[in-house]
Amino acid sequence: MAKFSIPQQDASVDALHAADGLGFEARSVVGDHAALKLWLRMLACTTQMESEIRRRLRVRFDTSLPRFDYLSQLYRETDGMRMKDLSSHLMVTGANVTAITDELERDGLVTRSSSPTDRRSWILNMTPKGREQFETMAKEHEQWVLELFACLDARTLAQMYQQLGGLRVHILNSQADAVPSSSTP
Amino acid sequence: MAKFSIPQQDASVDALHAADGLGFEARSVVGDHAALKLWLRMLACTTQMESEIRRRLRVRFDTSLPRFDYLSQLYRETDGMRMKDLSSHLMVTGANVTAITDELERDGLVTRSSSPTDRRSWILNMTPKGREQFETMAKEHEQWVLELFACLDARTLAQMYQQLGGLRVHILNSQADAVPSSSTP
Repeated sequence: MAKFSIPQQDASVDALHAADGLGFEARSVVGDHAALKLWLRMLACTTQMESEIRRRLRVRFDTSLPRFDYLSQLYRETDGMRMKDLSSHLMVTGANVTAITDELERDGLVTRSSSPTDRRSWILNMTPKGREQFETMAKEHEQWVLELFACLDARTLAQMYQQLGGLRVHILNSQADAVPSSSTP
Repeated sequence: MAKFSIPQQDASVDALHAADGLGFEARSVVGDHAALKLWLRMLACTTQMESEIRRRLRVRFDTSLPRFDYLSQLYRETDGMRMKDLSSHLMVTGANVTAITDELERDGLVTRSSSPTDRRSWILNMTPKGREQFETMAKEHEQWVLELFACLDARTLAQMYQQLGGLRVHILNSQADAVPSSSTP
């Protein structure tokens, strides 16, 4: 059901054929619509990339993606961050903020104090040691991403960035419409 | 650090600005490299899409993504599938094949029998009722994806599909190089 031809640019036919059989994409069958095929490929690509980053974080820094994600969020907040706000920002599956905080506090990378305005909530801050360790990891992490995306030229990076930006907004707008809870069978 | 201009096409500046503050992308800071920004946007976009699909599966069919993923894998194997092969194909986090099999068997959608060649392994098959129920869900699922990706035209779909195919192969090839286990600090 090829309604349009796929132009040959960077990737070879062999490369595309190889990608077809990997992970999520094995679900795709002949006749699937182009949007569905693209979605399964996006999902597969993201999973593959994430798993390679998890592997490198473990091998190079003996750390996990949830822990790296936690530090990268907190790093941006130089005045500290409430624990519950950090929880809502972490999107990595299985991240347990309390458990990660215990570990990072024990390692001297993070401190926790009670909020002056709300005694029930914790404020988290990064220590200078924490900031330094995170910067080392973040630099290397960025190099990994550059290397893993090196097959895409600057124009393609900018174009995909823009297209995915439009897609995110479109998905957000679609969430308000269609499939209302009242239509539950 | 804009090394190239981003051409204005489908998405408006407002839309891009709105996407910048969503989820994973909040991690991105001024000065980040284009590849890193794209990667965070891909991750955010996939998470957003997946969470919308999870929501619709729950509302419309009272089912979960791991369960849908399980059925879509098994549906393709008309001669059945070994339970351990199915496990290795499911990439949804937290999918527990044994628990899902118990549920689906109870609902009459799947049967389990012992392998004639290896008595220790289970062979899974979909029942006609299971195939019928899955087809109904799969049709609607495909419509959701078409709707959620409707902002991308046919040419863009084909182009991104090709680019992500090249990316998957590049990531696969990179896994063999760099960051060997022996360099663990």
